Amino acid sequence: MKISESLIKTQKHTAKDETSRNAQLLTQGGFIYKNMAGVYSYTPIGLRVLNKIMGIIREEMDRIGAQELFLASLQDPQIWEKTERWSDEAIDVWFKTRLKNETEIGLATTHEEPLTEMLSHFIGSYKDLPRYLYQFQTKFRNELRAKSGLMRSREFIMKDLYSFSRSEAELQEFYDQVILAYSTIFQRLGLGEKTIITYASGGSFSDFSHEFQTLTEAGEDTIYLDEEKGLAINKEVYSDEVITKLGLNKSRLVERKSVEVGNIFKLGTRFSETLGLGFTDEDGRKKPVVMGSYGIGPGRVMGTIAELHNDDQGLIWPEAVTPFQVYLIGLDTGSIEAEKIYRQLLESGVEVLFDDRDSASPGEKFADADLLGIPYRVVVSPKTIKENSIELKSRQSSETELIKFSELLERI
Amino acid sequence: MKISESLIKTQKHTAKDETSRNAQLLTQGGFIYKNMAGVYSYTPIGLRVLNKIMGIIREEMDRIGAQELFLASLQDPQIWEKTERWSDEAIDVWFKTRLKNETEIGLATTHEEPLTEMLSHFIGSYKDLPRYLYQFQTKFRNELRAKSGLMRSREFIMKDLYSFSRSEAELQEFYDQVILAYSTIFQRLGLGEKTIITYASGGSFSDFSHEFQTLTEAGEDTIYLDEEKGLAINKEVYSDEVITKLGLNKSRLVERKSVEVGNIFKLGTRFSETLGLGFTDEDGRKKPVVMGSYGIGPGRVMGTIAELHNDDQGLIWPEAVTPFQVYLIGLDTGSIEAEKIYRQLLESGVEVLFDDRDSASPGEKFADADLLGIPYRVVVSPKTIKENSIELKSRQSSETELIKFSELLERI
Repeated sequence: MKISESLIKTQKHTAKDETSRNAQLLTQGGFIYKNMAGVYSYTPIGLRVLNKIMGIIREEMDRIGAQELFLASLQDPQIWEKTERWSDEAIDVWFKTRLKNETEIGLATTHEEPLTEMLSHFIGSYKDLPRYLYQFQTKFRNELRAKSGLMRSREFIMKDLYSFSRSEAELQEFYDQVILAYSTIFQRLGLGEKTIITYASGGSFSDFSHEFQTLTEAGEDTIYLDEEKGLAINKEVYSDEVITKLGLNKSRLVERKSVEVGNIFKLGTRFSETLGLGFTDEDGRKKPVVMGSYGIGPGRVMGTIAELHNDDQGLIWPEAVTPFQVYLIGLDTGSIEAEKIYRQLLESGVEVLFDDRDSASPGEKFADADLLGIPYRVVVSPKTIKENSIELKSRQSSETELIKFSELLERI
Repeated sequence: MKISESLIKTQKHTAKDETSRNAQLLTQGGFIYKNMAGVYSYTPIGLRVLNKIMGIIREEMDRIGAQELFLASLQDPQIWEKTERWSDEAIDVWFKTRLKNETEIGLATTHEEPLTEMLSHFIGSYKDLPRYLYQFQTKFRNELRAKSGLMRSREFIMKDLYSFSRSEAELQEFYDQVILAYSTIFQRLGLGEKTIITYASGGSFSDFSHEFQTLTEAGEDTIYLDEEKGLAINKEVYSDEVITKLGLNKSRLVERKSVEVGNIFKLGTRFSETLGLGFTDEDGRKKPVVMGSYGIGPGRVMGTIAELHNDDQGLIWPEAVTPFQVYLIGLDTGSIEAEKIYRQLLESGVEVLFDDRDSASPGEKFADADLLGIPYRVVVSPKTIKENSIELKSRQSSETELIKFSELLERI
């Protein structure tokens, strides 16, 4: 893509009202735009990052046999009343609105209820199970405060996966698969080293749930981390009893701030019993379906990546989620040669952003390349042309080097 | 995909409360699930169809140089008050809700306002123009009545494209491109022959807007069609004066019912002037950006395709949007051989739905193949194996024929 034809425009002075580092960087880079507190839109370059994150998650969901669907946002109170989650006391982040006939309806904060109810029409026998269903769909949450950028917003896309099994053992088997899939996802997203499996409160069906907590001072959660084992306990369940139960050693646990990038949760039969999702087993007995739920917020992940991968000059995208691999700059008469290299890179399947602006100075171009966080910067100038080379700089290094174009394709 | 591992279950008796043919068929086939009046969820097989429709639209948007982004649903009243579209009188389908601090906010019925406001931070010079931006995003519309299935719902995904140009001439040039792109889209979607470019009310900036109206008795619109010219006038602007102005002949116009599957609209400077989206031209003069908007509802398109392409046995998907190309059935001992053919079809890149249920009778399998509307049905049975063949039937024909497997790949 050529910058002259794109919507890319770094916004150096408009992120003043943002207090979080991720929102500042993503706003300055022009990846997101704040419509209201806790409400963000994605520009084309921001959507490229979000789509790469969702693409990685989708691949790993499909790999464990989950099937994608798409559930409505508007919610019928009748179903939520059955599970006693319609009241603002039960779920304190409901957005509610009204139909023309004054019926109150809600905006989905999560989708356990409508999916369970829907599946009661699709599942009847043990032969219909297990099933694993997921979606990427907007969640609306009426947060009292929203000041952490993409890490806590009032409207965000969630990947929510739900499992429907015949027994606790079958649930456990899939639950363990999801732990592995999530570990793979965060590894691929560049968050692997900092993301810790954390024991958190489990609800009525299970002692614990599992959270994937990424270590960052910007996080809103507090966890107690055993660095050697790579396990942690969320403050909400931290007690001597729990430490002992989990076989951890209190003296080894360090208090850390973190952000919850994923969670997995056994729901058991809480929703299936209430909403009539049962099945007939091999012996003709009626049983409730045993459920689990598994969430990742791609927008929060994007905010967390931005929070972790940056320096004073701007963002540093991991290669798996970067909107472009190469930021190409042509200086002076190098611009014509740069155009040729742009075409060659495109033909080689490289995602390249060509800074072809004639209104920007070399200094502005270098600054934007850094702020946008593209992994490789390539400069073509009269000097490099004389050497029959291009100048390559990795975003993570301050060194530049002259290399041949053919070498460039090997390096990136 | 194997039916035994899918969520596919035809719902013969649960579409009673649906009055529209498209909702009946799509519900019976298990493509959609009605959560409330006018609110539908997409099952995995339904999402496959929706994704194919969106894929075709996306390709044609990208081809005319439009860039995809993703705008928030929650709406700040301040921006809509500026354009005088916040009141329920101005837009009578608003869903409104409140933040915790009692501030009233809205759910987007359309996105002219937030996008125009956002772009005032990204566009400043004639060099930043023109730009064409689109998204696939949910729209919420508080319809008084919603009884036409996917053709009029309270929550639906819209592809909305907006153009930002330097002059009326530049707008017109893109507008004409979109007419061609939309014609291509509806052609590819299997609606080409029945979809008519229709003159409709244009608002303050232009005499007419253009609608793409698909002829169907289930439509809520009335148009006056010149069959020979393939042009029509929407009833809302139908008058002798308009007929003359458009050079049409009243005696040739036939009244028809239709559904609006796309619309294109010149907005001019209505939003840019009010929301401060201007640019400096080559001569240093400040000018407002000239805008257009262009919508297609993929869900409504899916409903319209269902409405048009069916018979007494069920749906008949056009090949471009069908969830699967082949419905494969193994009868009796043919099932083992069918499993082999399933693998071979998958390896050849054919999207195949394998009805491997041992609980369903041959008659049920044939009925489901028809109801789901998959273009080709392939049967493997002891009889076909003896002939070293498979039985092929097109969904549009009642004839079956025995052919070799190698021939199958050529035919589909």
